[in-house]
Amino acid sequence: MKVVRWDASAWAFSVEKMKKVGLFETERFFLDLYCLEPGQSQKPHAHAGCDKVYLVVEGRGRFRVGDDERELGAGEGVLAGSGEVHGVENRSGDRLVVLTWMSPPPSR
Amino acid sequence: MKVVRWDASAWAFSVEKMKKVGLFETERFFLDLYCLEPGQSQKPHAHAGCDKVYLVVEGRGRFRVGDDERELGAGEGVLAGSGEVHGVENRSGDRLVVLTWMSPPPSR
Repeated sequence: MKVVRWDASAWAFSVEKMKKVGLFETERFFLDLYCLEPGQSQKPHAHAGCDKVYLVVEGRGRFRVGDDERELGAGEGVLAGSGEVHGVENRSGDRLVVLTWMSPPPSR
Repeated sequence: MKVVRWDASAWAFSVEKMKKVGLFETERFFLDLYCLEPGQSQKPHAHAGCDKVYLVVEGRGRFRVGDDERELGAGEGVLAGSGEVHGVENRSGDRLVVLTWMSPPPSR
């Protein structure tokens, strides 16, 4: 049984850009922790045929899905369905950690 | 943008059996919160062609994947791949809450 940790002991940050910490990946999905320092972002983009879920674990982020933008905090989550433009930006002064699920992985 | 909450404000329990709180579902995955009172369980079972991830949010549970069993606590997670027997039992004296992802949903 492969056990992972997704709490603060697993978080990792980079001064250069948003850090992705991979938890699991199969041919059907991946699950990552996205760790963003203040000012870092994942630029809006879209994937045909893939669904993505963002769940905020720590901090606050500005999320875009389609033409909509909202600030979400810990304990909130949002779905970006197939083809919908989506992204996240950490405009706060604190670190942001987001569980990010995608199915299927975009490369498959 | 459909925003959900996955923190304590979304948890729900039933005295009769483990309660599933649906967060998102598409043709590619579902994401539920499994909420287990002490003594409740999800009996071991398997799904061909589907992957499932359990992430423990609150409490402690006894998880089975294949022939392996381990007790996991908040901040830990495990993958049950296609065809692997999996289940969870709350043998503790406290409530157990688990983020549960499945791709694809078993009915599809």
